[in-house]
Amino acid sequence: MPMARRPHSYPEPVERLIEAFGRMPGIGRRTATRLAFHVLKDSPEEARSLCEAVQDVKERVACCSMCWQLTEVDPCPICSSPARDASTILVVEQPHDLMSLESTGMYTGVYHVLTGRIDPLAGVEPSDLTVATLFERVDDPSCNCRGEQVSEIILGLNPNLEGDSTALYLADELTRRSVRVTRLARGLPSGTQLEYASTAVLADALEGRRDVGSG
Amino acid sequence: MPMARRPHSYPEPVERLIEAFGRMPGIGRRTATRLAFHVLKDSPEEARSLCEAVQDVKERVACCSMCWQLTEVDPCPICSSPARDASTILVVEQPHDLMSLESTGMYTGVYHVLTGRIDPLAGVEPSDLTVATLFERVDDPSCNCRGEQVSEIILGLNPNLEGDSTALYLADELTRRSVRVTRLARGLPSGTQLEYASTAVLADALEGRRDVGSG
Repeated sequence: MPMARRPHSYPEPVERLIEAFGRMPGIGRRTATRLAFHVLKDSPEEARSLCEAVQDVKERVACCSMCWQLTEVDPCPICSSPARDASTILVVEQPHDLMSLESTGMYTGVYHVLTGRIDPLAGVEPSDLTVATLFERVDDPSCNCRGEQVSEIILGLNPNLEGDSTALYLADELTRRSVRVTRLARGLPSGTQLEYASTAVLADALEGRRDVGSG
Repeated sequence: MPMARRPHSYPEPVERLIEAFGRMPGIGRRTATRLAFHVLKDSPEEARSLCEAVQDVKERVACCSMCWQLTEVDPCPICSSPARDASTILVVEQPHDLMSLESTGMYTGVYHVLTGRIDPLAGVEPSDLTVATLFERVDDPSCNCRGEQVSEIILGLNPNLEGDSTALYLADELTRRSVRVTRLARGLPSGTQLEYASTAVLADALEGRRDVGSG
C-alpha cells in the first residue's frame, strides 16, 4: 500500500532524491528537482555509475597523513617520491591550489594543504585547519616526508584578505621556529594589460620591482 | 599499486565522481568539483542515503500507463481514485505542472502528462511525446481511467510559443474526434498591477473579458 501523502508532491523516492541533492552546497530545490529528473530519465547504467563513484570516493580516498592532500595511498605519491625535495614545503589552502601549482611543473618540493584559511567572521580558527601538523613537520623531522629537516616554508595562500591574514599568522609562528619563510611573488599577471590592472596589483608590482640588466 | 597518472589531477575515484556529476544538466566542471568535495567531506551516512535515493528512484518510480504521471503504483493514485471525474482530462507538459494545478485543490478530473511540448527547432515532434496515448484515451474508453468516456479535454500547456503551437496541434486533432476542447484562461495575473502588465497580457485580458453583474 502506498503511504498517504499530499497529492501534489512527487512519489516518495523522487522527493527523497530531491532532498538528497538539495543538501549539497549551492543546490536549491529547483536545481535539485532538475537533477532528480535527470536521474529518472537517465539509463540504469549511468545511475549505477554515479552510485559507485560516490561509494568509491568514500571508501578509497583519504587525506595524506603528512600533507593532507587527497590520496588513495598514504603517504601520497608526492610525499613518498624520492624525486621531491622534502626540505621545502609549499603551504596551500585547498587540494585544487596544489593541483594548479603542480601543473606548472616548476616546483620540486613537497606540499602542505591547510584545508581552509583562517576566517574569524566565518568561525574558522587555526585549530580548524591542519596548522598543528605543519608545525610538527617543522619541529620534528620524523613527522616530515622521509624524515627530512625542513629548511624553507613557502606560503602559497590566496592573495586576498583571508589568505593574507592566514599567511601573517603562519609567518609569525614559523619564524619563531627559525625556519626560512617565503611567500609567492605578487605583481602584474602575465598576459594582461597594465591599463586594466587594479591599484592593488600596481602597488604590489611597484613594491616588488626587481633589478634588470648587469647592474 | 595505484595507476600512473598526471600528478596534477585528483585521485581517480574523485575524478570519476566529478565526471558523473558533470554529466548532469547545467552542472559544469566547477560545480561538479564542488559537489564531489561535498560528498568527500560529508558523513558516510549522507553518502549512503544519496546512493539509496538514486537506486530507489530507478527501481521504484515509473510513469503511470494512463496519464504518464510519475508514480510508484500503476495506475497512479489519481487515475485509480473513484473520487476523480475520469471524463475530464487536463493535458499538461510536465509532472511539475500537474503538481502546481493539484496544489490549488480546484480540479477534480484526471490528467495527461505530455512529457514535453512540440518544438521543431529542438527536434521534438508529436511522436516524441505521449500524444498517441492521449488520443487512445479519447477514442477508446477502455484505455481511460476506469473505462470512462472522455467528454472534455482541458489544454493546460504553458502560455508561450511552444506551448501555444502544441495546444494548436492538439486542438486540431481532438476537435476532429468530436470531444469538447477547452484551454486554461488567460488574463491579468491576480495580485499584480495593471501598470506593469505586458502588452500580450493586456491583449489577452481585453480579448477574454467577461460580463459582470446581472446583465
